[in-house]
Amino acid sequence: MLSIALAPPVLAFASDTAVNHAHQPAYTQDGELVLPADYREWVFLSSGLGMSYSEKAPEGEPMFDNTFVDPESYREFVRTGTWPDKTQIVLEVRGSASRGSINQHGHYQSGGVHGVEVHVKDSARFKGGWAFFGFDGGSSAKKIPEAASCYSCHAAHGAVDTTFVQFYPTLLPFAQQHATLSAAFLKEEEKALK
Amino acid sequence: MLSIALAPPVLAFASDTAVNHAHQPAYTQDGELVLPADYREWVFLSSGLGMSYSEKAPEGEPMFDNTFVDPESYREFVRTGTWPDKTQIVLEVRGSASRGSINQHGHYQSGGVHGVEVHVKDSARFKGGWAFFGFDGGSSAKKIPEAASCYSCHAAHGAVDTTFVQFYPTLLPFAQQHATLSAAFLKEEEKALK
Repeated sequence: MLSIALAPPVLAFASDTAVNHAHQPAYTQDGELVLPADYREWVFLSSGLGMSYSEKAPEGEPMFDNTFVDPESYREFVRTGTWPDKTQIVLEVRGSASRGSINQHGHYQSGGVHGVEVHVKDSARFKGGWAFFGFDGGSSAKKIPEAASCYSCHAAHGAVDTTFVQFYPTLLPFAQQHATLSAAFLKEEEKALK
Repeated sequence: MLSIALAPPVLAFASDTAVNHAHQPAYTQDGELVLPADYREWVFLSSGLGMSYSEKAPEGEPMFDNTFVDPESYREFVRTGTWPDKTQIVLEVRGSASRGSINQHGHYQSGGVHGVEVHVKDSARFKGGWAFFGFDGGSSAKKIPEAASCYSCHAAHGAVDTTFVQFYPTLLPFAQQHATLSAAFLKEEEKALK
């Protein structure tokens, strides 16, 4: 008897970047970003509760924020310490509850989504490489204008490539290892230690 | 010229359950559970800050808990409202910080992992279907004895199949839709509304 082993054909993907992105950003015909339907199955980066960058304390029940990134960009960050083109970082805001079921203290996430913001790296499309999109319940969203404070704040304070890697404890060590932390961030950290 | 298209061979996976689990629980020869190395790439269920089920408030800086589940079991829960055999739910505990970088209020996750607990459904192996494993920095862990309070508390108060789906806002609607909420949980919720 003759045993024939057939090797499966090698699949080649056309791509203008080094990374094969199964989760490319998608746009409507008039340039709105399409909300990635499956972002809750992407890689979780971190969460916060009641975070605020303003001096004034936020009022009311604190909100949770959950951050996710597409799996290909996550693995590329682990490999290189920075984001490839076509990265999509999704920030989801959810309500919180404290006493409920058997919970007595602290806060857990409860109820629906209060808002979603996506930070997209698409160098052929956006000046500076990145753009923000704010979703208010819709399936697509217009780009937030570049004059908005999110752009200047991320550019001034983002630890890596205008993103807040300082708040993602699993990624920060890879940025340190690959020396991809921004000069501005390193200067701020040095000041804070004094 | 002749163009030949070769179909890749169909891969068949042997499985004793209906769900094809790429992320089966693995055990050492002496029955310890192996910590799933890639759990941070699994599906995020939710997080909490400073949660406690005791009347006494916890002391010190509050901790974040992050919960993940293997992707196959997540999709099966979405389809059926309950967990298949071989489900692994990972609870990760992390420290928090409040003022750091540009953050002024609230809390974000910071630093390393303070502990990991895994809740595994493996009916052929565990009485009642499920077992808990507490990892204290090692790559494998002994089963927590059944007399421990985690078993009785999850059995008495878990919304679905001894798990705290009441704290996972993306899954709770699927349990409601498929009517898989436990009788004990429904009774508790009814009492709380009175």
